[in-house]
Amino acid sequence: MGLTVTNASLDGEKVGVRCVDGLIEAIGPEVEARAGEETIDAGGALLVPPLLNGHTHAAMTLFRGTGGDLPLMPWLEDRILPVEAKLADEDVYWGARLACAEMIRSGTTRFWDMYWEVGATARAVADSGLRATLAAPLYDFAGDVIELAHAALEVLEPAAAENPRLAPSLGPHAIYTVCERSLRRIAELGAERGLPIHIHLSETSGEVEDCIAEHGERPAAYLDRVGLLNERTVLAHGVWLNEEELELIAARGATVVANPVANLKLTVGGFFPYPAARAAGVAVGLGTDGAGSNDSLDLLADLKFFALTQKHAAADPTAVGSAEAWEVATGARAPLLGATPLAPGEPADFLLLRHHAPELGIGDLTEDLVYAATGAVVDTTVVGGRVLMRGGEIPELEEIVARAAERARRLGL
Amino acid sequence: MGLTVTNASLDGEKVGVRCVDGLIEAIGPEVEARAGEETIDAGGALLVPPLLNGHTHAAMTLFRGTGGDLPLMPWLEDRILPVEAKLADEDVYWGARLACAEMIRSGTTRFWDMYWEVGATARAVADSGLRATLAAPLYDFAGDVIELAHAALEVLEPAAAENPRLAPSLGPHAIYTVCERSLRRIAELGAERGLPIHIHLSETSGEVEDCIAEHGERPAAYLDRVGLLNERTVLAHGVWLNEEELELIAARGATVVANPVANLKLTVGGFFPYPAARAAGVAVGLGTDGAGSNDSLDLLADLKFFALTQKHAAADPTAVGSAEAWEVATGARAPLLGATPLAPGEPADFLLLRHHAPELGIGDLTEDLVYAATGAVVDTTVVGGRVLMRGGEIPELEEIVARAAERARRLGL
Repeated sequence: MGLTVTNASLDGEKVGVRCVDGLIEAIGPEVEARAGEETIDAGGALLVPPLLNGHTHAAMTLFRGTGGDLPLMPWLEDRILPVEAKLADEDVYWGARLACAEMIRSGTTRFWDMYWEVGATARAVADSGLRATLAAPLYDFAGDVIELAHAALEVLEPAAAENPRLAPSLGPHAIYTVCERSLRRIAELGAERGLPIHIHLSETSGEVEDCIAEHGERPAAYLDRVGLLNERTVLAHGVWLNEEELELIAARGATVVANPVANLKLTVGGFFPYPAARAAGVAVGLGTDGAGSNDSLDLLADLKFFALTQKHAAADPTAVGSAEAWEVATGARAPLLGATPLAPGEPADFLLLRHHAPELGIGDLTEDLVYAATGAVVDTTVVGGRVLMRGGEIPELEEIVARAAERARRLGL
Repeated sequence: MGLTVTNASLDGEKVGVRCVDGLIEAIGPEVEARAGEETIDAGGALLVPPLLNGHTHAAMTLFRGTGGDLPLMPWLEDRILPVEAKLADEDVYWGARLACAEMIRSGTTRFWDMYWEVGATARAVADSGLRATLAAPLYDFAGDVIELAHAALEVLEPAAAENPRLAPSLGPHAIYTVCERSLRRIAELGAERGLPIHIHLSETSGEVEDCIAEHGERPAAYLDRVGLLNERTVLAHGVWLNEEELELIAARGATVVANPVANLKLTVGGFFPYPAARAAGVAVGLGTDGAGSNDSLDLLADLKFFALTQKHAAADPTAVGSAEAWEVATGARAPLLGATPLAPGEPADFLLLRHHAPELGIGDLTEDLVYAATGAVVDTTVVGGRVLMRGGEIPELEEIVARAAERARRLGL
């Protein structure tokens, strides 16, 4: 059974989209509704590709709105770690369901996640209908990283075999929480299985100083030396990467995901050097980070932060243009992340935007999306030909919010 | 005739609000619906005071999404000024109607505006049901500033006499576009009539350097010397104010309105020094600036920018807390701006927020509002006991967007 969208607006033209078996079969003015099949009359709504959240910790929605005005260490040590120590599978499930609901509502259809109880997140992703590449966080303090990785893969690989929207990855937390030997072992496992590597890198200047002091080189060079910098690597943050590191990252084909809102909230003191990364040819995506340090998962809102903080940091309003920023947020500038362009043969993932939204009525659509819109302009979210939101309504949203809130209360949040 | 809201949630308590003659008559658990009167069952929605936009140029919604990636001068000289030169009354009316619709939808009920064809903005405000303090921009290049001011007052004063939600003010554009003699004459007129003064001050470092070069003193001292710094003055931006200027502004009782998003977009290079202003005792509000340099009028979205850029600039996550940031955005820290607190005898202006919104379900409500929410969480907007939006629906929105878009096209935008 297929889905046909009619009467959508694409680049000023009235088009239809026909989806079969989860893929776009055709897109254009000639596509018409077929009798007896599911049809959406878009009523002139704007058809755009979906957003891609390159770095998050989905279940941390449970930590939203707590300790947001505390210094980093009391926040982490008093609010986050004691609660994470007692997280149950059901906590993570409902936190991740809430995250998925927010992403569906604000137009994100694929995300890269790293969090505890990864099986619960996998269930939440499957139940919500989104796409995700999931990793269990690997820390030396939590046990032998390879045992931890295998335990996660034992859950993730069968889940991914059942659900083509799910993919496993390895999540060494950071170079300061995983020792060199562990990083090398993770690199070997990743190479053996061809698994993506998702790691935090160069988020704070302290991390860079410590890396130089301990290893005699900067974080990207160290990561390369231990075998973890390649075309399967996603580096979250990258605030303090210098030009030499960016050249190395580009040469190795790794991807960097910028997280401007979390960087501001945790006051790391800078921003991912996007213009230098572009000049070096680095693949770049955008992430929200977890709701514990954002506190939203609305990537369209974060896209404005990305573009404006880049202009600010460069002291140049032309430092990043809206068309380019939009490509960053949709994953079009980072092939590994798995963007879903609007084209026949691609996954049937797309958004319909309210064309009567005040933010989208005037001026260039891409400028409006980057500088004026939030996720509230999304009317309909489709993933793999399945309608996850229509008219801004997500089935079960009320229950999801209530259940997640109940889990947060139970945890004392 | 009154309006009664029942079943709203305030600080965790179920309350009602009774509004009579535009004012709140009673608020609390004892308030119940009255037969034969307009009643809203809030269904558990969260009752909060509305937001107050302390600095904007409403009709500049027409300029949204154009030239957002240009350097300042080409943007101003090629895109803005040639179009402003041919603005008709109807252009400004529909641009301002669109701005009012956006503000209603995102929970702003009062704004301070400065723009051409101020009578058209006054009509738009009256037709939309919002509150506003309006000024015509006074520039020496446009004519004799006192003649311009009188022409504006001849329109604004009768409009304000008819409509208690409207107030006139004087809008000398800036110290670099209005000469000392003109500023002194505006100060005299303001003092005679007791009118608020709305002026841009210390937005760029170049303005400060030029002021010192030309007048031998910094902008706040110069403004004080010409008689324009007093308890009726609203200073927009204030990015480059130093401690001495902040002390002077506090001593004179003037208000500063921070515009963090416009400051980032136009890359002025800094942020209003809020912690120093707070230490000096300056009254502070928050503004979006015009949609030409933002491009949104969603003050809740800008509130996140305000709080996070302040944390970033201070390199301290505790630099501004969410409760305090919320006070800034609702006008509670700047009496001149005209906040409307939730209390008997006050204007019946308030919001009902979707309590099932994912952003508001977990954690502290104020933290959620500052760090997680956008204006999309607003379900109902009430001004003076009149319901301007219910269930997220604004009557006439579709027509307003279409008419504004038509005016923008006619202007070649």
